[in-house]
Amino acid sequence: MRVRVYVTLKPGVLDPAGKAVQGGLVALGFPEVSEVRIGKFFELDVAEGPNVKERVEEMCRKLLANTVIERFRVELPEGAS
Amino acid sequence: MRVRVYVTLKPGVLDPAGKAVQGGLVALGFPEVSEVRIGKFFELDVAEGPNVKERVEEMCRKLLANTVIERFRVELPEGAS
Repeated sequence: MRVRVYVTLKPGVLDPAGKAVQGGLVALGFPEVSEVRIGKFFELDVAEGPNVKERVEEMCRKLLANTVIERFRVELPEGAS
Repeated sequence: MRVRVYVTLKPGVLDPAGKAVQGGLVALGFPEVSEVRIGKFFELDVAEGPNVKERVEEMCRKLLANTVIERFRVELPEGAS
């Protein structure tokens, strides 16, 4: 099954890359953009099995996210557990 | 308003970083993961105005995505246009 993981910086953590993108957008003629924050997401093909969500959350804590500064959200296909 | 932009590699474009993450997950004890693809996403704070979606799509084409190898999807808050 296709599992999506979204990793974002925690609120309060500075995002200099996002700030650079925001400045770039303003310079390109988009002054309406007041803030940009950049995250990652992962699309995982995972074999069916028990506790898929818990397993993927463990993957996040071990490899995909730096939980000191990032939070993550795991999204399973409709109806999966 | 808060606009989300998802940027992913087009199908067929190699993703060596995703491949490395997949190998890392298998090595960490998650053999059920057969493929990983990595994307980016952006959270933009955009002032209200006309044609927000079209404006953000233009930002994607000009700066946020490399449309040669990437596709993008713009997600507005419920009810916005």
